[in-house]
Amino acid sequence: MRLGTLKRGGRDGTLVAVSADGARVSPVPGWPTLQTVLDHWDLALPALHAAAAAAEPGEAVDPASFAAPLPRAWQWLDGSAFPTHGELMQQAFHLPPIESDKPLMYQGLSHQFLGPTDDVPLPRETDGIDFEGEFGVITGDVPMGCSAADALQHIRLIVLINDWSLRAIAPVEMKTGFGWVQAKPACSMAPFALTPDQLGDAWRDGRVCLPLTVEVNGQWFGNPNGDTMAYGFHELIAHAAYSRSLPAGTIIGSGTVSNPDHASVGSTCISERRAIEMIEHGAPRTPFLTFGNRVKMHAGSAASNFGVIDQQIIGSEAETM
Amino acid sequence: MRLGTLKRGGRDGTLVAVSADGARVSPVPGWPTLQTVLDHWDLALPALHAAAAAAEPGEAVDPASFAAPLPRAWQWLDGSAFPTHGELMQQAFHLPPIESDKPLMYQGLSHQFLGPTDDVPLPRETDGIDFEGEFGVITGDVPMGCSAADALQHIRLIVLINDWSLRAIAPVEMKTGFGWVQAKPACSMAPFALTPDQLGDAWRDGRVCLPLTVEVNGQWFGNPNGDTMAYGFHELIAHAAYSRSLPAGTIIGSGTVSNPDHASVGSTCISERRAIEMIEHGAPRTPFLTFGNRVKMHAGSAASNFGVIDQQIIGSEAETM
Repeated sequence: MRLGTLKRGGRDGTLVAVSADGARVSPVPGWPTLQTVLDHWDLALPALHAAAAAAEPGEAVDPASFAAPLPRAWQWLDGSAFPTHGELMQQAFHLPPIESDKPLMYQGLSHQFLGPTDDVPLPRETDGIDFEGEFGVITGDVPMGCSAADALQHIRLIVLINDWSLRAIAPVEMKTGFGWVQAKPACSMAPFALTPDQLGDAWRDGRVCLPLTVEVNGQWFGNPNGDTMAYGFHELIAHAAYSRSLPAGTIIGSGTVSNPDHASVGSTCISERRAIEMIEHGAPRTPFLTFGNRVKMHAGSAASNFGVIDQQIIGSEAETM
Repeated sequence: MRLGTLKRGGRDGTLVAVSADGARVSPVPGWPTLQTVLDHWDLALPALHAAAAAAEPGEAVDPASFAAPLPRAWQWLDGSAFPTHGELMQQAFHLPPIESDKPLMYQGLSHQFLGPTDDVPLPRETDGIDFEGEFGVITGDVPMGCSAADALQHIRLIVLINDWSLRAIAPVEMKTGFGWVQAKPACSMAPFALTPDQLGDAWRDGRVCLPLTVEVNGQWFGNPNGDTMAYGFHELIAHAAYSRSLPAGTIIGSGTVSNPDHASVGSTCISERRAIEMIEHGAPRTPFLTFGNRVKMHAGSAASNFGVIDQQIIGSEAETM
């Protein structure tokens, strides 16, 4: 089953089920928003299945009609679960390995997820504008102390996320130990949220085993696979729930998708490609982004999975014009 | 004007205006929750003023009736704006000073703020259970790029917060650079949220100039004043809004209140007192908390300001019993 949110109604948009080709939708009677469904998942399931069937001959919609599946969420906890990414950054910047026998995770901005074709307003081109291609899961209610084994059953939906990052600020904030505030503006989400069964064999051991393809200004940038996560999403959920309960609608991120064979599959963020260039050539060659640049992401077959993120970066001054 | 939220209705409780003695309340017709008021502040003001007048001869309520004024919020960004606290921690633990010419700030759990008399469920006594007495402000909608001068007008309400912290985990998470997840469970809030004018002369330059009094198991622990913040709340808001807009209901925290004359005014967290003991005696003497311990906080005159936080720590296993 695939769910989306149209830019209709209030701040949380209007929930729809999505057809197999991603081009048609049906509303879900009695369930106006995705958050209401997440709050009462089992109760909503029959209506969701009926809407999924109704979506096949449903209303044809334009990709620009979609907001993020969850336009705002109570919690966004982003991991960094691909070891290759960390190792490359440490090698390039001569950093000591991060000492942790637990998953790496920070809490980020969750009151706004940009829609898949929304412009991305950012304050300055000199901040080192970058993207991060990630997979994420949306949970139901998770009790404090939930085990990794139990956490699997609390995964309701899987999403594709672009975690926008400002690289001139990130290391400065990281050095304080407090994590990132200014370096992590609002993320973007692909239009369709999938139930785990929808992924079939590509959902294995709490991992999304699909290539995540990134294009920058129409050029291929990378397509590493989500299968090399050091921790599965269920383990990330258990980590997050150690001393807190997670409310329905919590989004947990994988961190930048990155594979050991990066020479052939590329990267899902500029920062990692620059690190590889520093290691190979002594200096970075790929510039960060500027206003007007476009970033596109999808995973596996776009139409049958998460759909496409396709956005342009703009100056935040332009946002209100 | 003082506002509170009763544990009635849904997850967001029921908004009430509070009498001058803090013992009586009136509902606010047409405005069921504090979040709805924050979303439309100017529109709600006449109803709030009418309810404040009606509260004087209003319904008598028990302190245990109150939830946190905002039982869940879209965003909680906690600063660390008292230089004395940081200096003491660095001296005791032989840490290098944190290099930053900007305010220190992390994003914390905002989907749950415990009510002032709620039990505090935590997983383990061995995690170094500690409190942090803080002031906080609740904002209206703040646009990305808002200046500090403009930010003052977006401060709607002022609150008193206990930022529960797990000290055995905090330094481990801090070293990763990602900030805190497991070390920062849900915070608690005193029952009454105040408009800035309610504080009179105690609201100066974006600072709450009142002593914050902490008692642990009935014993005085400290009462430092909020006036020594290195940055005012308006400056913390501007820092937070550099690359994001802040939604109405964003809560910004001051960090642990701490004064240079800590020898006489004490501290608002155990960790700082232990740091002082390490500096003075070579080793900490004050233990962290255990299940069954009680922590009480108020600021200035409790009845005329934020009311009282008075809570017991329990094991999270006990929560569901």
